[in-house]
Amino acid sequence: MASYKSEKINLLNRLSRIEGQVRGLQNMIEDEKYCVDVLTQIAAVKGALNKVGMKILEKHTHGCVKQAVANDQGEEIINELMEVINKFTK
Amino acid sequence: MASYKSEKINLLNRLSRIEGQVRGLQNMIEDEKYCVDVLTQIAAVKGALNKVGMKILEKHTHGCVKQAVANDQGEEIINELMEVINKFTK
Amino acid sequence: MASYKSEKINLLNRLSRIEGQVRGLQNMIEDEKYCVDVLTQIAAVKGALNKVGMKILEKHTHGCVKQAVANDQGEEIINELMEVINKFTK
Amino acid sequence: MASYKSEKINLLNRLSRIEGQVRGLQNMIEDEKYCVDVLTQIAAVKGALNKVGMKILEKHTHGCVKQAVANDQGEEIINELMEVINKFTK
Repeated sequence: MASYKSEKINLLNRLSRIEGQVRGLQNMIEDEKYCVDVLTQIAAVKGALNKVGMKILEKHTHGCVKQAVANDQGEEIINELMEVINKFTK
Repeated sequence: MASYKSEKINLLNRLSRIEGQVRGLQNMIEDEKYCVDVLTQIAAVKGALNKVGMKILEKHTHGCVKQAVANDQGEEIINELMEVINKFTK
Repeated sequence: MASYKSEKINLLNRLSRIEGQVRGLQNMIEDEKYCVDVLTQIAAVKGALNKVGMKILEKHTHGCVKQAVANDQGEEIINELMEVINKFTK
Repeated sequence: MASYKSEKINLLNRLSRIEGQVRGLQNMIEDEKYCVDVLTQIAAVKGALNKVGMKILEKHTHGCVKQAVANDQGEEIINELMEVINKFTK
């Protein structure tokens, strides 16, 4: 079971807004809007994606990781967690 | 005129793929896929957005910034460029 | 007790190399080396610091966090972990 | 000539403070301070390095890049600039 289950609607709403922002970016390019305005909007989308990621990371750590530790299967889960944090900080 | 004009189709294609990836993320959440898989996918979308941003930044610097410098209006444009790079490195 | 105890010598060696790199940066500035070479070196130092951070984060999660979860004190420790990851991804 | 010449003393002061912070990190590890405190301090050093980098990037763009554009040698310099920004956003 996914640890973020209680946040599903919140996450889906955020992602639906992000989808809209990406469509907005396509319109900006289509209309040849000024580069810096496009870049500012891209930075905003990245920030919004980061928030979704941090929320899932938090739920994952409170949920899956905690349970794995309780079941003495923490090592592998924590290694996996580190790898995904590594991807995220790049 | 937008400096990225020559890359318009390329950029629109990339953004349309990113839109698809964001929709894919919504499906993953809907289906309660494993947290780490969702996080890996979010990191991929962030990477794809970064590439779009770097392409526009490059075109902007070769285009608008170069022209502004040639017209002795470089200072303001370069300050603006620095601000947007700052947003991007966050 | 610090979770990174077993990595102390490794971490101290890395930090001592980073200290040398920062001194090297001061020499580069003093000698007015080319901007791009200085920036490349700064990026290298940031990368080296990131590696130290990830190593400590890993040890912390395997150590302190695991123990806190085992003692039913996981919530606060995980919130704290999320905050520090948030600082790190910026 | 380095474009950051006018900022030399400012940059050297910042780097000397960063060197002190890295030495402080070694003491924290030596004394086995709490992981999260060490990580918070590492994030602070990364932030301080970023500021030095952004200052040099700004001076470089106002200086070397502007001059190269004026001399019609902008293409190569801008490509180089993009590469270094790419390293920086990672």
